[in-house]
Amino acid sequence: MASTALGRRGRAADVPALVDRAREGDPRSVARLISLVEDASPLLREVMAGLAPHAGAAHVVGITGAPGVGKSTSTNALVGALRAQGKRVGVLAVDPSSPFSGGALLGDRIRMQDHALDREVYIRSMASRGHLGGLSWATPQALRVLDAAGCDVILVETVGVGQSEVEIASMADTTLVLLAPGMGDAVQAAKAGILEVGDIYVINKADRDGANQVRRELRSMLALAERPAGAWKPPIVTTVAVKGEGTEDVADELDRHFIWLSESGQLQARRTRRARDEIEAIAVTSLRERWRDVHERTELDALAEQVVAGDTDPYAAADELLEAYTD
Amino acid sequence: MASTALGRRGRAADVPALVDRAREGDPRSVARLISLVEDASPLLREVMAGLAPHAGAAHVVGITGAPGVGKSTSTNALVGALRAQGKRVGVLAVDPSSPFSGGALLGDRIRMQDHALDREVYIRSMASRGHLGGLSWATPQALRVLDAAGCDVILVETVGVGQSEVEIASMADTTLVLLAPGMGDAVQAAKAGILEVGDIYVINKADRDGANQVRRELRSMLALAERPAGAWKPPIVTTVAVKGEGTEDVADELDRHFIWLSESGQLQARRTRRARDEIEAIAVTSLRERWRDVHERTELDALAEQVVAGDTDPYAAADELLEAYTD
Repeated sequence: MASTALGRRGRAADVPALVDRAREGDPRSVARLISLVEDASPLLREVMAGLAPHAGAAHVVGITGAPGVGKSTSTNALVGALRAQGKRVGVLAVDPSSPFSGGALLGDRIRMQDHALDREVYIRSMASRGHLGGLSWATPQALRVLDAAGCDVILVETVGVGQSEVEIASMADTTLVLLAPGMGDAVQAAKAGILEVGDIYVINKADRDGANQVRRELRSMLALAERPAGAWKPPIVTTVAVKGEGTEDVADELDRHFIWLSESGQLQARRTRRARDEIEAIAVTSLRERWRDVHERTELDALAEQVVAGDTDPYAAADELLEAYTD
Repeated sequence: MASTALGRRGRAADVPALVDRAREGDPRSVARLISLVEDASPLLREVMAGLAPHAGAAHVVGITGAPGVGKSTSTNALVGALRAQGKRVGVLAVDPSSPFSGGALLGDRIRMQDHALDREVYIRSMASRGHLGGLSWATPQALRVLDAAGCDVILVETVGVGQSEVEIASMADTTLVLLAPGMGDAVQAAKAGILEVGDIYVINKADRDGANQVRRELRSMLALAERPAGAWKPPIVTTVAVKGEGTEDVADELDRHFIWLSESGQLQARRTRRARDEIEAIAVTSLRERWRDVHERTELDALAEQVVAGDTDPYAAADELLEAYTD
């Protein structure tokens, strides 16, 4: 496979050199690699192969919660707390309303500039194309880029409606669920299935009325969940992210959960499950592309016509399709 | 493949004999065949193969609309109108609240008894397992049974929320969308994407206030849709289903649409597309089952571990998975 080709803006990309520079922490090379995977460039496979030996060190943290709970402010504060611990931090914003992805108020955007000049912080917004409101299909690949680039922690901020919190939970090592008082949140969260995916719960805006009530409701709902012996018991942390209060506690709980994951064998188990999903999705997509080649009449088209004509049935046709593929 | 095996209730099933009796219109044999496909019995493939030569004659009509528009009453009235034309009719109810599936008021259930003793009407409710609130995975197979059993028209009644109207549109030859006044329906329908799937629109409860307004709104929304030259222009029919008013018009429009489908080549095109989706779904499911064999460690498990260890990347692993399958 050629190791150079025209990338975005027409420049040639030398994948091994890009990977080397990204590993040294060069933000432009990181950006370039993410663009290559996001654009599904012809170099995608070479990039993924180049990253493989350098992955697996980062702690991937999903951050989810309904709009208005202060997700971006919390993410911002958490970046600061992690930097204070000397960690290299990556941020992937998949929330289209996030200031990270440029969709928010000017005040928020300026606040994020705290970290914009810090070479140990890499911030990237992802278009959520492909999935309606959900995660971009390229999120796992972008995670691999940031991982290989030496990020100790990668925060993935999602929009927190519909399926995306379940998706991020399947992608993250640790899922952080944000709530805030005055939004009927605990009940909403229960309905949305959020109580099944959280590893750490953060009640933000804890200086407001009702924070204690959210905490009580959340605690009693979590108490109802059946957990096997030795299972992780999700902690509840209260914060006032806008003042940075409680953010260090969140960072500590992240550490504690990562250690628990490693020692219990859950880290390996979760990552293996994630890799299995990813491989399977790529394999199925690749098969579908062959079956549905738009340029020529495929075996699938021919079989579909036979089914319509009553010459075969869909099950026999599926067998034939799989056999035709194997020759 | 063995042609007998224990079916539901422990009786042996002789598939060719069942298919023969179903084709003669024996309702017990039809019921038995649908149970075999719905239970994913070991005989499923044999049943599908036995049905294949006898399929393709029925006009499959999807009926969808929000709760409260009078879907079951309309379906009931339509069965009567089609019977008056001498047609054999099948009804598949995938709506859990439908009287056909036993979930409704006693009054409705008794009304359906009109047709319960008519051998030329076959009524079956389908559990909607597998899809959350959507169509049962076995719906296409049950359609094939009713088709082979000589039904001229098969009405598929769906719950009409979320994805199910899109699903039924991909499965039906003709999609009938029901609206009623006083429900903010036209706007709701537009939001739900219903205006893209309807071949025929029925405004039921047309004797109530607001029916004209629904009609006007619907007409102007439909007028906005861009349609290529020669495309079907969805008609709007008004009914009072509870009195049987307008139901014959609906039956006539169904005929008119079926003739248009046949003459324009769209019938063949829609059915080929449907068969392609069906074959592909069966093939992918069958692959996933092999890849995810719960009883033994599969190639996919091994590859996932290699990805986690950094020995390979997900794309190369997907290639290997597909190759491993081909040996």
